[in-house]
Amino acid sequence: MMMEELIKLVNEKLDEYLEIKYPQTIFESMKYTLSLKGKRLRPVMCLETVRMLGKNLETALPTACAIEMLHVQSLIHDDLPCMDNDDYRRGKPSNHKVFGEAAAVLAGDALLTYAPQTIIEKSTGLTAEQILKIIHEYTKAAGAYGLIGGQIVDIESEKQHFEKDKEETLSYIHIHKTAVLFRLAIKTACIIAATNEETTLELDEFALKFGEAFQIYDDIMDEISTFEEMGKTIGKDKQAEKLTYTTLYGLENAISKCLLLIKECHDIIDKYGSEIFEEILGKIEKRLNTRK
Amino acid sequence: MMMEELIKLVNEKLDEYLEIKYPQTIFESMKYTLSLKGKRLRPVMCLETVRMLGKNLETALPTACAIEMLHVQSLIHDDLPCMDNDDYRRGKPSNHKVFGEAAAVLAGDALLTYAPQTIIEKSTGLTAEQILKIIHEYTKAAGAYGLIGGQIVDIESEKQHFEKDKEETLSYIHIHKTAVLFRLAIKTACIIAATNEETTLELDEFALKFGEAFQIYDDIMDEISTFEEMGKTIGKDKQAEKLTYTTLYGLENAISKCLLLIKECHDIIDKYGSEIFEEILGKIEKRLNTRK
Repeated sequence: MMMEELIKLVNEKLDEYLEIKYPQTIFESMKYTLSLKGKRLRPVMCLETVRMLGKNLETALPTACAIEMLHVQSLIHDDLPCMDNDDYRRGKPSNHKVFGEAAAVLAGDALLTYAPQTIIEKSTGLTAEQILKIIHEYTKAAGAYGLIGGQIVDIESEKQHFEKDKEETLSYIHIHKTAVLFRLAIKTACIIAATNEETTLELDEFALKFGEAFQIYDDIMDEISTFEEMGKTIGKDKQAEKLTYTTLYGLENAISKCLLLIKECHDIIDKYGSEIFEEILGKIEKRLNTRK
Repeated sequence: MMMEELIKLVNEKLDEYLEIKYPQTIFESMKYTLSLKGKRLRPVMCLETVRMLGKNLETALPTACAIEMLHVQSLIHDDLPCMDNDDYRRGKPSNHKVFGEAAAVLAGDALLTYAPQTIIEKSTGLTAEQILKIIHEYTKAAGAYGLIGGQIVDIESEKQHFEKDKEETLSYIHIHKTAVLFRLAIKTACIIAATNEETTLELDEFALKFGEAFQIYDDIMDEISTFEEMGKTIGKDKQAEKLTYTTLYGLENAISKCLLLIKECHDIIDKYGSEIFEEILGKIEKRLNTRK
C-alpha cells in the first residue's frame, strides 16, 4: 500500500470507531480534532511496521488508531489557554476555540481512555496476553513516565525552571514528549507481529532516533516555516523562550543534527525495504536540503 | 476488617504504588490530591465486595486503588477554573491552586492512565483475561460513555442546555457521573471473585441504587451542610442554578427519595451480612434522620 492509501484507511477507521451518541457535545468535540487532516504518521508507522514484519496490517488497525487518539488528546490539552494557548491546530481553530475549555478538557480525557477501549473492543486475531501487553505499553507511553513527563518538563523549561541541566532536559523532552509515541507505534507493531527481541530492539532504536529527528525538525520548522505549511502558529517557541534544539544549539547545528539522525534511521531501516519509511525520511531530508 | 482498617490499607497502597520520580512536579501534583484524606468509599466497597464473595481481598488492592485514582483525577479536573472552579477539595486548596492549572490538567491526565497501569503491574493471582475484563470496565466507566458523559451533561445543564427533558437529564447525570464508579468498584470485584452472573447483576443493582442515593445525598448536603463537614465549598449548586435533585424536586422530597433508595440497598445487601456495607448505609441514614 502507498502512504496515501494507509492514511485513508486510518481516517476511515477513526471515523468508524467513534460514533456520535448522546451526549452529542462530547463526541462532537472528540471527533472534531480527530478528523482534522493530519499526516497520521504514528498510525501509518505502526501499520507499515506490522506489514513489513509479515503480518496482516488489518490486525493492527485498532492499535494504530488508538495511538492517533492519544496523539490527538495530547494536542487538544496542549492547545489549552493554561498550556501552550494555541488558537489553531492543523490549520483550523483549536478544540477549545470551538467547544470551550471545559469540553476540550473533557474531550481529551475521554480520548485517553477511549483509545485502550478501542484496542480491547475492536482487535481481532490477538490473544488476551498480546492485547494486555499493548495496553501496558500504551499506559506507560501516555502517563507521567512518558508523554506527560515530557510535557511538564517542556512547560517548566519555559519558566527557566530546570531540575537537570539544559542538555539533559532537552534530551528528556525529546524522548518523552515526541519519540515516545513513535516508539509506542513500533513497539506495539512488534507485539502484534510477535517479533523476536533482537528485531524489536533494533526497530525501537530506529523509533527513538526518528522521534528525536522529528522533534528537531519541528523546532526548525517553528523558525523557518509558515502558518500555511504547518497549520499552526509559528515562531512561538522563540517568543516563549522555550528550550528547543534551535534555541540551544542554533539553527544550522539543528539542521545538521536532524539530517544526521535521519541518516542513522536509514542505516537501520533501509534493509527492510519499506517504501513508506523511505518516503517519510525522504520528505524531511528534502525539506531541510531546500533550506540549506 | 473494620472500615478504618480498610481505609488505612488503601491509603498505604496508594502511597506505595505511586513513587515520586523525575520530573518531580507531576508526581507531587498527582500525589497531592491522591493523599488528601477522603472516605475512600469506592475502593473500600470494591475490597469489601471481594471479601464478601469469599476471595482474598489483597487480590483486589491494585484495582481498588486504580478506581480511587480515577475518582481523584475527576475531582482534579472538576475543580479547574474552566469547570466548577472550586478552590477547595477535601478541606485543602484544590490541585490547581497549589500547582497551577497546567500541572493540574496534566496530573489528571497522568492518573487516568496510571490507574490501568497499576492494575496491570501490581495485580497478582489474576489471569490475563480477568485483568483485560477489569480494564475494559475501567475504560467504559472513565470515558464518554461513563464519567465524562455525566460530567458534560452536568456542565451543560448549568447553562440550561438540555438535549433531553430535565427528569431524564438528571437521571443520566446521576447514573453516569456518580453511580458509574460504584458500579465499577463492584463489577470489578465480581470479576476478581469470578462471581456468577446472577449475583453480579444483583450487586450491580445495589451499586446503581447506592450511586443514585449517594448523589442525592451529596445534593442535599450542598444545601444543609457546612464547609467544615464536607471539606468543599457549599451552596454552589443553587448559585450556579445547577440541575440537582433538590432544585428539581425540593429538599424534603430529596431526603425521602434518598432514604427510600438506601432502604432498597438494605433489601439487596443485608443478606450478605457485611458490617461495612451496613456502616456505610447507616451513616447516610443517620445524617438524614438528624435533619428530619
